Amino acid sequence: MLHSGDDPVIATLGRQLRLGVVGGAPGAMIAPMHRRASVLDGRFAIVAGVLSSDPARSVAAGIEIGLAPDRAYGSVAHMVDAETSRADGIDAVAIMTPNDSHYAIAAAATDRNLDVIIDKPLVNLAAEATELLHRVRRAGTVLCVTHPYSAYPMIREARALIEAGALGEIRAIEVRYLAGGLAAPIDGTAEGKRRWRLDPARSGPSLVLGDLGTHAHHLAAFVLNAPVSAVRAELATLVRGRRVHDYAELALRFASGARGRVGLCQAAPGQPNNLSLSVIGERASLEWRHDRHAELSLLPLADPPQRLLAGAPYLSPAARAASRLARTGHPDGMLEAFANLYSEAALAIAARRAGKPPDQDALFPTVLDGARGIWFIQAAIASDRSEHRWEPCPADA
Amino acid sequence: MLHSGDDPVIATLGRQLRLGVVGGAPGAMIAPMHRRASVLDGRFAIVAGVLSSDPARSVAAGIEIGLAPDRAYGSVAHMVDAETSRADGIDAVAIMTPNDSHYAIAAAATDRNLDVIIDKPLVNLAAEATELLHRVRRAGTVLCVTHPYSAYPMIREARALIEAGALGEIRAIEVRYLAGGLAAPIDGTAEGKRRWRLDPARSGPSLVLGDLGTHAHHLAAFVLNAPVSAVRAELATLVRGRRVHDYAELALRFASGARGRVGLCQAAPGQPNNLSLSVIGERASLEWRHDRHAELSLLPLADPPQRLLAGAPYLSPAARAASRLARTGHPDGMLEAFANLYSEAALAIAARRAGKPPDQDALFPTVLDGARGIWFIQAAIASDRSEHRWEPCPADA
Amino acid sequence: MLHSGDDPVIATLGRQLRLGVVGGAPGAMIAPMHRRASVLDGRFAIVAGVLSSDPARSVAAGIEIGLAPDRAYGSVAHMVDAETSRADGIDAVAIMTPNDSHYAIAAAATDRNLDVIIDKPLVNLAAEATELLHRVRRAGTVLCVTHPYSAYPMIREARALIEAGALGEIRAIEVRYLAGGLAAPIDGTAEGKRRWRLDPARSGPSLVLGDLGTHAHHLAAFVLNAPVSAVRAELATLVRGRRVHDYAELALRFASGARGRVGLCQAAPGQPNNLSLSVIGERASLEWRHDRHAELSLLPLADPPQRLLAGAPYLSPAARAASRLARTGHPDGMLEAFANLYSEAALAIAARRAGKPPDQDALFPTVLDGARGIWFIQAAIASDRSEHRWEPCPADA
Amino acid sequence: MLHSGDDPVIATLGRQLRLGVVGGAPGAMIAPMHRRASVLDGRFAIVAGVLSSDPARSVAAGIEIGLAPDRAYGSVAHMVDAETSRADGIDAVAIMTPNDSHYAIAAAATDRNLDVIIDKPLVNLAAEATELLHRVRRAGTVLCVTHPYSAYPMIREARALIEAGALGEIRAIEVRYLAGGLAAPIDGTAEGKRRWRLDPARSGPSLVLGDLGTHAHHLAAFVLNAPVSAVRAELATLVRGRRVHDYAELALRFASGARGRVGLCQAAPGQPNNLSLSVIGERASLEWRHDRHAELSLLPLADPPQRLLAGAPYLSPAARAASRLARTGHPDGMLEAFANLYSEAALAIAARRAGKPPDQDALFPTVLDGARGIWFIQAAIASDRSEHRWEPCPADA
Repeated sequence: MLHSGDDPVIATLGRQLRLGVVGGAPGAMIAPMHRRASVLDGRFAIVAGVLSSDPARSVAAGIEIGLAPDRAYGSVAHMVDAETSRADGIDAVAIMTPNDSHYAIAAAATDRNLDVIIDKPLVNLAAEATELLHRVRRAGTVLCVTHPYSAYPMIREARALIEAGALGEIRAIEVRYLAGGLAAPIDGTAEGKRRWRLDPARSGPSLVLGDLGTHAHHLAAFVLNAPVSAVRAELATLVRGRRVHDYAELALRFASGARGRVGLCQAAPGQPNNLSLSVIGERASLEWRHDRHAELSLLPLADPPQRLLAGAPYLSPAARAASRLARTGHPDGMLEAFANLYSEAALAIAARRAGKPPDQDALFPTVLDGARGIWFIQAAIASDRSEHRWEPCPADA
Repeated sequence: MLHSGDDPVIATLGRQLRLGVVGGAPGAMIAPMHRRASVLDGRFAIVAGVLSSDPARSVAAGIEIGLAPDRAYGSVAHMVDAETSRADGIDAVAIMTPNDSHYAIAAAATDRNLDVIIDKPLVNLAAEATELLHRVRRAGTVLCVTHPYSAYPMIREARALIEAGALGEIRAIEVRYLAGGLAAPIDGTAEGKRRWRLDPARSGPSLVLGDLGTHAHHLAAFVLNAPVSAVRAELATLVRGRRVHDYAELALRFASGARGRVGLCQAAPGQPNNLSLSVIGERASLEWRHDRHAELSLLPLADPPQRLLAGAPYLSPAARAASRLARTGHPDGMLEAFANLYSEAALAIAARRAGKPPDQDALFPTVLDGARGIWFIQAAIASDRSEHRWEPCPADA
Repeated sequence: MLHSGDDPVIATLGRQLRLGVVGGAPGAMIAPMHRRASVLDGRFAIVAGVLSSDPARSVAAGIEIGLAPDRAYGSVAHMVDAETSRADGIDAVAIMTPNDSHYAIAAAATDRNLDVIIDKPLVNLAAEATELLHRVRRAGTVLCVTHPYSAYPMIREARALIEAGALGEIRAIEVRYLAGGLAAPIDGTAEGKRRWRLDPARSGPSLVLGDLGTHAHHLAAFVLNAPVSAVRAELATLVRGRRVHDYAELALRFASGARGRVGLCQAAPGQPNNLSLSVIGERASLEWRHDRHAELSLLPLADPPQRLLAGAPYLSPAARAASRLARTGHPDGMLEAFANLYSEAALAIAARRAGKPPDQDALFPTVLDGARGIWFIQAAIASDRSEHRWEPCPADA
Repeated sequence: MLHSGDDPVIATLGRQLRLGVVGGAPGAMIAPMHRRASVLDGRFAIVAGVLSSDPARSVAAGIEIGLAPDRAYGSVAHMVDAETSRADGIDAVAIMTPNDSHYAIAAAATDRNLDVIIDKPLVNLAAEATELLHRVRRAGTVLCVTHPYSAYPMIREARALIEAGALGEIRAIEVRYLAGGLAAPIDGTAEGKRRWRLDPARSGPSLVLGDLGTHAHHLAAFVLNAPVSAVRAELATLVRGRRVHDYAELALRFASGARGRVGLCQAAPGQPNNLSLSVIGERASLEWRHDRHAELSLLPLADPPQRLLAGAPYLSPAARAASRLARTGHPDGMLEAFANLYSEAALAIAARRAGKPPDQDALFPTVLDGARGIWFIQAAIASDRSEHRWEPCPADA
C-alpha cells in the first residue's frame, strides 16, 4: 500500500525498511501470512530472500515470488554476506523455517547487526535460548517473536484493563487451546513423514509445548504483564504411535501469587485453533475466545457484563492502535474481502491486457451489477413516492 | 508481499499490475482499506495517484504516501493523460472518492482504456449508470464495484450451495443491515457539515439506499445468482432535521417468484455494521451474519443444522479460493495481528537504525519473551518427569 | 408444589384457585404445557375439565389425567353448569382448543362469571373479538391470553428500560419470526389433513397472522407499551398447494410516530421458533433473540454494549419478578432438568413399590454415584496434600 | 398438572407418589426448585414435610406452604414415625438441607424403607458415603442424588453419542465450572456468617469440591459412562480470609486410559454458573456449555460441525425423552413464561374474587390485547388486498 502519509517509520528513516525472508518456498503454509503481514502497513518492502534449504530451489523460488535475481539467495550465509555489503542492503530478516533451524539463522543475522522477526518457538532448546538472548543483547538488535495472539486488539485491551486496575488483584488466569491439526492418526503415513512437526528431532523436545504452549505461556504473561514463575505439568501423547506430545495440562504460578491453568491439545477433531482466555480478578472477570477475537467480555461483580468491541471509541489507546478499521466498524475479515475483489479484478485486467477471453465465472461485481444497484435505487424511490407500489427493476440497459 | 510463486496474474503478464488511486488524502476512512487490499496478494503495485480534489494538496499527499513525485498528480485528467503516455503507465484506476464524483472519474478512465475499481455506489443517478455501462461496454474494459460482502468466503459458499441445489427451490431471502454510524444527531453541527454523506447533493438521491441498499441489493442478487425484478419500498428519515434517508424497508421480487425483504437503518445506536442474511429454500435454510462472517449455518428440513466454517476442506472451490488461511484454521484477523507485530517491530528497528532510544512500552514479544517460552518448556518437561512437581521458570538469563 | 409460604393468592383467598381445563386429550401438543404451567407456582389446582369435543372421550381422558370422575365432563356447557352450582366449583377456565372454538367457549365461561385463560389467537374473527371484549367488560371478569413471549424476564426488562427512558425516543422496532413447523409440503397428505392449522375454516382468515402475527403484534406493542395504530401488509403462501398463508411482511406505525417492521414465515426449514426483536431508540438499541431468551443486549450510542442476564440484581423489579431462579444464577432449563431426575426417581420408586424389577437403564444418579463423588473428594484432598500426586478413586465399597 | 393420561407411574401404582420434604423454610434458595420440579410431571404430590430444624418454625412453615396441619412435622424422626404408620403415608423423602445434616436424614429415611431424593453432595464424609451405600443396599430402596446437569437433554445426547461410538475411542474430557456466587469477600461479614457454605464444619472438607466438584465429577463419569479411577488435585482459596476452598484444578484418569481435566472456581466475578464440557474422541469432539444447554456441538474430523438441538427428531431416544417440548421447538424457558402468565392471571382472579381492585400494572395480555391482535389481522388482510396500502388498527371497540 506504499504507506500512510504520516507513518512514523517513514518519518524517522525517510524510507521503508528492507526485509529479507528466510523460508516460504511455494507450498509453505505460514510464510504467505508473514509476507502479506510484513507489507500490510507499508513499513517493510521484501527485497531479498532464501526460500529453501536447497540452494537451487531457493534461488528459483525467490525469483518466482518477484525478488530481483541477484537478491534471491541460495543460503542464509550468502544473503547475510551480500546484503550487509550493499548500501541498500536489508535491515532485517524474517525467519519462517522449521524450528530446528531457528537458532543458527537468528544468530547469524544478529551477529551481523541485522534485526530479526522470527516465528515461534524462538529456538528448540533452552541453552540456545539463553545463548541467543546474550547475542541479541550484545548486538543491541531488535528481535520480535511472532506470537500473534498478543497482538489482537482485544488482548491488548485485556492487558490495559488489568494494568489500569479494572479487575483489582488478579486471582487466576486460564488459557485453553484445542486444535485439530494433528487429530488424524497420520503419523506412520507418507503424509505424516513429510510433516517435520511429527519428527521430534526437528520440532523440539515437546511439540505441543512448542506449538501451542509457547503461545499460551506468552499470552498469559502478556495479559498479566508478569512472567510465569513456576510450572507444574503433565504431558501426553493421545494418538497412538505418535512420537511427539499432543496434549498437555499445566498449572502456572506468578510472582504475585496469581494462579494459572493451561489446557492444550493438538489432537481434538474439528477444533479450528480454539484458543480461549479467562481472567479472574478481585472485582471482575474477563472472557475472550479466538473465534470471536474482536470481542472481550468484562464481567463485573455486580454490574451488567460488557461486551467490548474492537475498534470502539471506549477502548484503551493500545487496543485502538491495534485496529486498522477503527472508524468503520467493520470486522477484520473486511480487508481480505476487499482484497478478494482487487485480486479477482486483477485477474480480469491481466486477461484483458494479454488479449485473453474474460473468465465467465468471475464473481466480482461488474459495471452491470453496479448499474443494477443504481436503477434499483431509482425504482425504490418511485415506489416510496407512489404509496409503496411495486416498481420493476431493469436488469440491463 | 511481492507475490506468490505461481500467481496467475504474474504468469499472464510477466509483471504486477500498476494502479493509480483516486481519493484517500491523509485522514480518509476507506482509502487505506483500498490501498492495503490492493497490494495484499501482490497483484497490484500502487504507482500513481490523485489524493485530493485540491491540486496542491493532492501532489503533497501523493508524495507523502510514497509515490514518485512525478506520479503524484494534481487532477484526474492530468493523471490519465500522463499515465496513458508512459510505457510503464498505470493499467487501472481505483476510485474511492465521494459519490458525486464517481461518474466523471470512472468515465474519464474508461474512455482512455483504463480498467476501473470503484467504491459503491457506482454513481449517483440512474442515467449516469446507464451511460457508464454503455461506455464500459464500448471500451471493453474491466470495471469492478467494491461490494465486499459478496467476497466473504461464506457468502461465496451460500451462492455455491444454492447453485448446487442444496436448498431446493428458493422461496425467500432476507437481508438486514443495521448500522450506527449516523445514529447521533450531528446533522446541524460542524462535524455534520464536514460529512459529505449528510449532504444530499453529494451523497445521491437516497443515502440509505446508496450506502446500505446497494450492498443489500447486490448481496441478495449475488447469493441467488439472479437479478432483482421488482421492488416495493418505504423510505424514511429517523433523525429529526436530517436531509437524507437513514431508514428503509424494501420488498423484493425475483423472476423465479422468490420473495425478498430488506430492512435497513443507518441510525441504530451501537450497531456496528450488523448485516445479516437468511435464505429460505424448499429443503433447507441458510443463516449468516457479518460479525460471524466466517460461519454459515445450513439448516436442513429434518437433519441437524451444520455450522460451515471458512477455510474448511468440505467447502466449495469458490469458497475455499476466497480464504487465504485455508490450511491454518485461523480466523481472518490473524493476518492483521501478524501485521501488528511486523509494524511494531518496524518501529523499533527504525528507531534503532536512526540511533533513537527504543520505545519502552513496545508490546511485541522480544527475544527475552521468546527465551522465557523455551525455558518454560524445559521446566514443564522436568515437572512432567518428576511426578508433576512444581518447577521454577527463569525470568532472565 | 403446594405453594410458597408467602404467596399473595393464598394470602388473599385462603386457598388455591380451582381451574377447569378445556382441550388437551392425550396426544395434544400445547395442553401439557398449559397444565404444567398452571400448577408451577402452586396458585391453581386443576379440578375439572373437558378434554375432547367427543363427550365419551372427554370423560375418559379427564379421568385418565386424574380428575375426579364427577368433574371430568363431556361438554363445556355441562362443566360450566355443574361447576357454577358447586360450593367448591372452578374459579377459571383454561382454553387450549383449536382456534375456531375459542369464541364460544370463552363467551360461555365469561357469561357465567368464570375467569378465562386462553391460548392465542383470542378468536378467529374481528367481530368475535369485539363481542367477546364487550362480554368480558360487562361481566367484569379476568381474561388472559397466553402470549408467553411477553412474559420472558428479558422482554419485561426491555419494556422497563424503554419506559424508564434508557433508549430515549423510540424510532423503530423490528420483530422477526421464522419457524419451520410448516416447512415440509405435507398439505395434501394424510398427516396434513389431520392438522387443523392447514384448514382455513378452522385456523382463521390468515394462519401466519394468527399463529405468528398475533405474537409479533403483541410483543411489539408490549415492549413499547403502545398500541399499533396502522399496518401495511403483504401476505403469501410459500408452499405450493397450501390453502393458508405461511409468509407475511408487515410495516407498523405507532401513534408516537415510531415505525415497526415484522417478518414472518412458518415454512423456513430447520428454524426452531426463531423469534427476534430489535429496538432502535434515540440513545440506545436493544437486541433479543428467542434462543438466548435469558439475555438482552443494550447497545448505547457510544458506551460498551451490555449483555443483561435474567435473574441478575441490576434488572428492573418487573424483570426480576419474572425469574424463579433469580438467586441461583441457573438457566431456566434447570427446573426441567431437576424435574427429569424427580420423574425418573418416581419411576424407580413406583416399580419398587409395585414389586417390579428396577430399570437397569435408569439414568438418574444413584447412591453409588453419590458415594463415588464423596470418595473422589477424599482422594482429591489427599492428592492436594501430597504434592499433587495421583490418588486412586474407589468405584465401589 | 395432575398427570398425563398414560403416565407409567400412575399406570403402575394407580396413584401419584406421596412425598415428604425436608428443608425449604420460606427464604430457602434451592427448595422451591425441588418442590416445583417434583410436581412438574404429576408423579409426586407433596403431602408432608419438615421445613426447619426448629420444630415450631417447621410446623408453621409446613402449614404455610399448604401441608395439612397434622403432616407438617417438627422433626424428621417424627415425620418418619408418623408417616410410616399411616395407610396413606409418604413413599419418599426429598432432602434439601445443609450438607452436614444429609447423612442422618437419609439414613433415617432409608432405614424405614422410604425412598430418598437428596441434594448433592450425598453426605460430607467418605465414611458416611460408604455407610449410606451399605444401608441403601440392605434396604433395597431407591436413592437419587440431584445432579441436574446429567439430566439436560443434550448431556443425555452426549452420552448416547459416545455410547454409540460416534466419537470413536475417547481420548480426553474437560469440564470447567466457573461461578461467581462466592466472588465477593463477604466471609467476615454478617451475611457471610449466615451462609453455612462458608463454615467448613457444615459444608464439608472442601467446599469447592462439594459444591462444584461433585457435579463435574458426576458429569464426566456420566457422559463417559465410566467411573473416575484416579485423581490428581490442587485445591486453593482465592479470597483472602476465607476458611473454605473456592478454587480447584483436577486431573482425572479413567480405566480406559482416557484423561480428564477439571477447572473449578466459585470466586469468579460475574460468572453465572458457567459450566462447560469438551470431549475429545478419536473421530469427533463434542462441545457443550450450560448457558446454551439446549445445544450440543459435534465436531467430526473432516465433515462440517453439527449443532444438535434439544427436542429435535434426529436425537437419541434418551435425549428426546428428556425434553418436554420436543414437538413444539420452543426453548425450555417457555414453560416458565407460560407459568408467569398463569400466575399473574391468578393474582388478578384472586383479587376479583376477594372484591379487591385490580392491579393496574398487571402485565399479562388481556382481552383487549387479544382483541387488538384480531383487529390487526383484519387490517393486515385489508392492506394486503388493496395493493399493500396503510390500514388503521383500532385500539378499542
